[in-house]
Amino acid sequence: MKIFINAKDLGNLNTAVKEAFEVKKNRFMYKHLGENKTLLMVFFNSSLRTRLSTQKASMNLGMNTIVLDINHGTWKLETERGIIMDGDKPEHILEAIPVMGCYCDIIGVRSFAKFESKLDDYSENILQQFIRYSNKPVFSMEGATTHPLQAFADLITIEEFKKKSHPKVVLSWAPHPKALPQAVPNSFVDFMNEADVDLVITHPKGYELDPRFVRGAMVEYNQRKAFEGADFIYAKNWAVYEDTRYGQVLSKDRNWTIDTAKMNLTNHAKFMHCLPIRRNMIVTDEVIESPQSIVIQEASNREISCQVVLKRMLENL
Amino acid sequence: MKIFINAKDLGNLNTAVKEAFEVKKNRFMYKHLGENKTLLMVFFNSSLRTRLSTQKASMNLGMNTIVLDINHGTWKLETERGIIMDGDKPEHILEAIPVMGCYCDIIGVRSFAKFESKLDDYSENILQQFIRYSNKPVFSMEGATTHPLQAFADLITIEEFKKKSHPKVVLSWAPHPKALPQAVPNSFVDFMNEADVDLVITHPKGYELDPRFVRGAMVEYNQRKAFEGADFIYAKNWAVYEDTRYGQVLSKDRNWTIDTAKMNLTNHAKFMHCLPIRRNMIVTDEVIESPQSIVIQEASNREISCQVVLKRMLENL
Amino acid sequence: MKIFINAKDLGNLNTAVKEAFEVKKNRFMYKHLGENKTLLMVFFNSSLRTRLSTQKASMNLGMNTIVLDINHGTWKLETERGIIMDGDKPEHILEAIPVMGCYCDIIGVRSFAKFESKLDDYSENILQQFIRYSNKPVFSMEGATTHPLQAFADLITIEEFKKKSHPKVVLSWAPHPKALPQAVPNSFVDFMNEADVDLVITHPKGYELDPRFVRGAMVEYNQRKAFEGADFIYAKNWAVYEDTRYGQVLSKDRNWTIDTAKMNLTNHAKFMHCLPIRRNMIVTDEVIESPQSIVIQEASNREISCQVVLKRMLENL
Repeated sequence: MKIFINAKDLGNLNTAVKEAFEVKKNRFMYKHLGENKTLLMVFFNSSLRTRLSTQKASMNLGMNTIVLDINHGTWKLETERGIIMDGDKPEHILEAIPVMGCYCDIIGVRSFAKFESKLDDYSENILQQFIRYSNKPVFSMEGATTHPLQAFADLITIEEFKKKSHPKVVLSWAPHPKALPQAVPNSFVDFMNEADVDLVITHPKGYELDPRFVRGAMVEYNQRKAFEGADFIYAKNWAVYEDTRYGQVLSKDRNWTIDTAKMNLTNHAKFMHCLPIRRNMIVTDEVIESPQSIVIQEASNREISCQVVLKRMLENL
Repeated sequence: MKIFINAKDLGNLNTAVKEAFEVKKNRFMYKHLGENKTLLMVFFNSSLRTRLSTQKASMNLGMNTIVLDINHGTWKLETERGIIMDGDKPEHILEAIPVMGCYCDIIGVRSFAKFESKLDDYSENILQQFIRYSNKPVFSMEGATTHPLQAFADLITIEEFKKKSHPKVVLSWAPHPKALPQAVPNSFVDFMNEADVDLVITHPKGYELDPRFVRGAMVEYNQRKAFEGADFIYAKNWAVYEDTRYGQVLSKDRNWTIDTAKMNLTNHAKFMHCLPIRRNMIVTDEVIESPQSIVIQEASNREISCQVVLKRMLENL
Repeated sequence: MKIFINAKDLGNLNTAVKEAFEVKKNRFMYKHLGENKTLLMVFFNSSLRTRLSTQKASMNLGMNTIVLDINHGTWKLETERGIIMDGDKPEHILEAIPVMGCYCDIIGVRSFAKFESKLDDYSENILQQFIRYSNKPVFSMEGATTHPLQAFADLITIEEFKKKSHPKVVLSWAPHPKALPQAVPNSFVDFMNEADVDLVITHPKGYELDPRFVRGAMVEYNQRKAFEGADFIYAKNWAVYEDTRYGQVLSKDRNWTIDTAKMNLTNHAKFMHCLPIRRNMIVTDEVIESPQSIVIQEASNREISCQVVLKRMLENL
């Protein structure tokens, strides 16, 4: 494994989940793999869960870890050729990234969507430049358009908690005060489309996700109808993907908030969210504190999903 | 050991000091205990000594260490239920802290008094929330009201340098330009009250400490009288504890500065301070540079006190 | 080895380069040396390459690493005696540095020239205070006036790529939009003067370096003439050293930019620079992207130069 950005990078998902369960049973079994190997974690955006879980996964594998926090504002790399670099960009990407690559064995990169240009966000400039110029395996710690470590952890969690072989999984948009990227729903849909589940996506009109991720998945604009018989409710807010209103917030309608009445429409569904979560916007206190909520177990699987990715990259060095 | 905030959490202090001496003789003897164990250090306030000594102690024990610097200003966690979280608090304490807990084995937390509300400071909100919700052993790396790793290091230092079995130990207030919390004097008094010493506290009127820490200890308002026959002088500034003037600076009177003339009243007392120290405010150059000053040895024992606490927590996992 | 600031601290350079090649062949051969040893890296200025390469070298040797980022603005240490410390300096150097020293085994320090006072910069105050008061081996991670880890890496790189026993090495000034310290050229000249090379320095008039580093080296003000027959071109900008215009930028003349025409005057010279580099100011895209450019290989040798220094310090503990 050289790259981890999308579901397809994992190959067969059943095999990947089996590997995750094996790792979870004994986190330190592969500690020899990371001996004398160094993980460089490059953060262009701040992080709590991703940073902690990635560092923990790396340590489980016996790797050294170097964390580099780069302020998006101060990190001005020149990317064009021919430019006379007499301005505010002190370094060219063609030197900066190979140099980072030469002091480590694997690189993780976090770089969020900026909502300044859809083209820029969806080209995943920063991640792609690391892939192209670092000469090292690169994985996303949440890019502009995908968050595969989260979606893989979500899949592991669903496999742990499912009570039947082909569960109904509902991705539900929910309200939020600020514009959020589509990385989490994109990757969730990407993974669920490849998993052995019945995926339904529900959101207000105007919030349609990128068809390259949605593919054939069913979209149901009636949230209550979508919830009927669901085994898992995956809540998430995102801003508009569509070109003319890209990054906008069309609705903060709390009729979309997930409450007990809606959960009662489901088949005793488990409630999931990637966290951090706005209570009483995304979900009521009652639902998130109920036994149906598995958000903490889901977060704890971030360590496992990351460890599988690092393990595979180490095995492939 | 699950919690370390006060002297009583250590149990018998003589046993704890013996353990400290044993650890100090061979710091790496217990390295197996920390294998595959992770310490999370959460700093809401900046730190030099505590950060370095805690990281060192953790490494001595073979633990992995993750340092998390959280800006008090940016860390806005919702703590109430029922609130519609559409404002500036992106996460609820009920999710944030269990998630931190799930990626580590032991948590250290630093969170100073803010002097905005005595009730808030003395309820140790942040620390108590970590204890309640993290599901992991928690120790204070200086809270709002106590600094037990410092006081335990102070006790170890006194036991190392004492020349008689029941030394006279004087905690002396000394002037400082800014308002400082009571965490260090509170813990010092807390520990000395349980130790085999003769404790005297001296300070200007109005600087009385919390009676829950002072308990029966003698308070002598005449500094010179307090110093007579002392074996250890422990200098420290603190702001007012009393309700109506909580957090105020009543005096910057340099008549309370500790100088050679006052040290000459003692029984060749050793001079102690937790550092950082304002020279010629708290103490004169002459005293702190004299052979009687043991402030560096005291600081170096921070590694030892922390290692005993981590060792006990590891043994109890 | 107790101190590393200048070429002479390495002793015989041939021996040092041999040691570097041995380390490079098997980076983990000396991992036992660092067992239970802690490196403290103190940064008064930000760092990418130095931080990563030093951490990597330390890990190669099995050391624990603690990184301390200190903002120059907030780090106000009192250095004088007798001062009443009631102002903005909360700690005296005589306490701060010994305390840092007591939690580690080796200290690396980065502290750039400020260009406020030539006397201050060239006295290397911060570094010298660490050497004097920390009680531990200290190495420069770039001081105000030298950058020995860079120059040692440069020497290793030249030894790797040279095609004859006594190559001609040209240090060429090149234009840059901002004033840069002399640390890199000073150390380069310092090392080349001790190495088995033919050193020529070329720069516009007014950019003469400190004679204590230049010593007998040839200075040629005609850049083209200097390049004739060169085996290595080492490009670098620096601001004025001379007293009356210390720290000034006299020229941004792009006639000094290194381009293919100039490289054609050389003996197929390799192109070197410490990075980060301003393209089309210091060097054209064409030259830096040509096979003659060895800037990435040079950067990767930063890990090696640092590892030799740490290894020697560990062997000498």
